[in-house]
Amino acid sequence: MPSLSEFDLIARYFSRPAADNALIRQGIGDDCAILSARDVDLAVTTDLLVEGTHFFPNADPHALGHKALAVNLSDLAAAGATPACFFLALALPRADEAWLASFSTGLFALADEFGCTLAGGDTTRAPNIAGTAGSITICITALGRVPPGQALSRGAAVSGDDLWVSGELGAAALALAMRRGEVELAPADAQVCAARLDRPLPRVALGQALRGVAHAAIDVSDGLLADLGHIAERSGVGATVHWDSVPRAAALQSQPEARQRACALAGGDDYELLFTAPASARARIESAARRARAHVTRIGSLTSARDLVVVDRGGERIELRQRGFDHFT
Amino acid sequence: MPSLSEFDLIARYFSRPAADNALIRQGIGDDCAILSARDVDLAVTTDLLVEGTHFFPNADPHALGHKALAVNLSDLAAAGATPACFFLALALPRADEAWLASFSTGLFALADEFGCTLAGGDTTRAPNIAGTAGSITICITALGRVPPGQALSRGAAVSGDDLWVSGELGAAALALAMRRGEVELAPADAQVCAARLDRPLPRVALGQALRGVAHAAIDVSDGLLADLGHIAERSGVGATVHWDSVPRAAALQSQPEARQRACALAGGDDYELLFTAPASARARIESAARRARAHVTRIGSLTSARDLVVVDRGGERIELRQRGFDHFT
Repeated sequence: MPSLSEFDLIARYFSRPAADNALIRQGIGDDCAILSARDVDLAVTTDLLVEGTHFFPNADPHALGHKALAVNLSDLAAAGATPACFFLALALPRADEAWLASFSTGLFALADEFGCTLAGGDTTRAPNIAGTAGSITICITALGRVPPGQALSRGAAVSGDDLWVSGELGAAALALAMRRGEVELAPADAQVCAARLDRPLPRVALGQALRGVAHAAIDVSDGLLADLGHIAERSGVGATVHWDSVPRAAALQSQPEARQRACALAGGDDYELLFTAPASARARIESAARRARAHVTRIGSLTSARDLVVVDRGGERIELRQRGFDHFT
Repeated sequence: MPSLSEFDLIARYFSRPAADNALIRQGIGDDCAILSARDVDLAVTTDLLVEGTHFFPNADPHALGHKALAVNLSDLAAAGATPACFFLALALPRADEAWLASFSTGLFALADEFGCTLAGGDTTRAPNIAGTAGSITICITALGRVPPGQALSRGAAVSGDDLWVSGELGAAALALAMRRGEVELAPADAQVCAARLDRPLPRVALGQALRGVAHAAIDVSDGLLADLGHIAERSGVGATVHWDSVPRAAALQSQPEARQRACALAGGDDYELLFTAPASARARIESAARRARAHVTRIGSLTSARDLVVVDRGGERIELRQRGFDHFT
C-alpha cells in the first residue's frame, strides 16, 4: 500500500465538494472555518470517543463513523437544534486507508442524512514519540441552528411537569452486556440491540418539534436516571418515575427484572430524548411526536422534593443500586 | 485521595462563575452551549493533542493546559479573530486530581489573558474496556469573533506579495531536539527554547492588526516551508524565501548550518504568524506590528511559478531535504 501523507489522506477521504450551507462562509482547508450566523442562535456540542473506553478495539469503522457523529447530533436534538456543520479531530495509530475509507463513509452517510457539513478538523497519527501502539481517538464538535432564544435546555423543568421519553430504552445496554459475555441473546434480538448500540439514530426531528412545547430536555446517553438527575439538578426539582411505564426494548422484556432495571434505568447509549412538559401540553406533545415520526411515552412527573424516586405499579418505592454510568467512579 | 465522580471533577476544576461574554447565551453544563453571533463572523478551529505524539508522557500539566489552548488561539490569530470561547474534551487514564488542578490552572491562565471563556466540554476516563493504560488526550475547539467578511485566510496571497513572518523561528524545534537527546544546549538557552516549545504565545494582537492590511496568513505550526506550502497551494502561487533574512532564535544561531535550516525552515511548533502583503503596504505592516508589540521580518516574496524556493545571500538555490512535519509520512 503506498504511503499517503497526512494531507493526501485528508484530501482523499474528507474533502468533498463545497456544500450549499448558508452558515459556512469558509469551510475545510484553512486555519479556521468561518461561520456567519446572523439570524440564528448556534447550539454547540463536543464529544470525545476513545478506543477501549467508548468502543471496543476492532470496532467496525463504518459504524464508528456513524456513532461518532450521531452522539453529537443527539446533543443538538436535545437542544432542539437543526444540525448545520461539524469539526472532526482524529488520532490514528497508523495511516490505514481501508479504515479511513470505511469510517468516512459511515460518517458522511449520517452527515448527509442530516445536512450536516464537515467544516474543518485535525488529523494526526498517534503516538510516535513513545513508540507504543496508540488508541483511535475521535473528537467531533457539532454546531446546529436554533431560532433565537428557543433552544431547549436541562434547566427549564418545573415541578408538576410530566416526564416523557422517546422510543424504547435498554437495547444498547443489553448489547453491551452481550459483548461483555454477561448475557446471551437470540440472534434476531442480538442484531436489533447491536444496531441500537452501534448505529443510534439521533432524535433530531423530535427535538425540533418540541421547541416551544417542552420545558426541559436532555438525551439519554448516561442512563435514564443519571440524565434525569441532570435535569433535576439544573432545574432545582425532583422526579418520580413509574417503572411500569418505562418503555423497554422488546429483547429486554424477556430478561430478569434486575437486568431490565439495570439496562432501562441505568444503561447509557440509547440516545432517546427525555423531556418534561406541563400536563396541559399533552395533546401538543403527542402531535409533535407524530410530526417527528417518534413514539413518546409519559413515564412520571416532576416534584418539588429534590429526590429521584422510582415506584412500582402499587406506588411502592423501588430501591436501586445503580444510577447510571459515571466515567470516573 | 477520595474518589470523585466525573461530575464532581468537572464542577471542581472546570466550573467557574459565568463570564461576561456577549457571545454566550448559555454556557457549560447543558447538552449544548448556545451562542448568539448576530453582528460578527465566527472563526472556528479544533486541535487534538495526544500524549506520546504531541507531548511527552509526564509533561508538565500546567504547561499542557497552556499549550492545548494556545495552539487553538494561534489558529484564531491566523484568521485575525478575537478569541471568544472554547470547548474542551479531555480523556484521562485516571481521575488524577493533582494533574487536573495543574492542567486547569495553566489552561485558565491563558484563557483569562485572552478573554476566552470555557463554554462546554466532555470529560472521560480512558480506557476502561481493554484494561490497558490509556493516553491523555485533549481536544479543544475554539471560537473567535471577526468582523463580517474580514477574516484572514491562507488563500488570498497574490504573486508579487512580500512574505513576512513574526518573531523568530526554530526555538521550539531546537528544544524538541534537545529533549530527544540530539543536541545539548547551555542552561539559559535550554530554558528559553523549552519555554517556546511548552508555552507558545499566540500572536492574537498581531492577527487582529493585520486584518485589512495583509493578504494571506497562517500560523507556523508544521514548519515554515510546510505552512508556506499551504498558503502557496490555496492561493495558487509559489514563493522565494531568502534564508539569510529568516529570523532565527538566538540559541539556534550558534548551531551548525544544517540544524539551523532544519529547525527554522522545517521545525514546527513556533506559532508565529506567516503572512503576505503587497509591497505598497510595508509601512502599514510595520505600524500594525508596532501596535501589536510584535517584531516582523520580510523574508521573501510570492511568485507566479508554483514552486517553493529557498535562496542564499548570492541568490543561489539551497537544496532542502525536509519540508516540515507531516504526521503520516
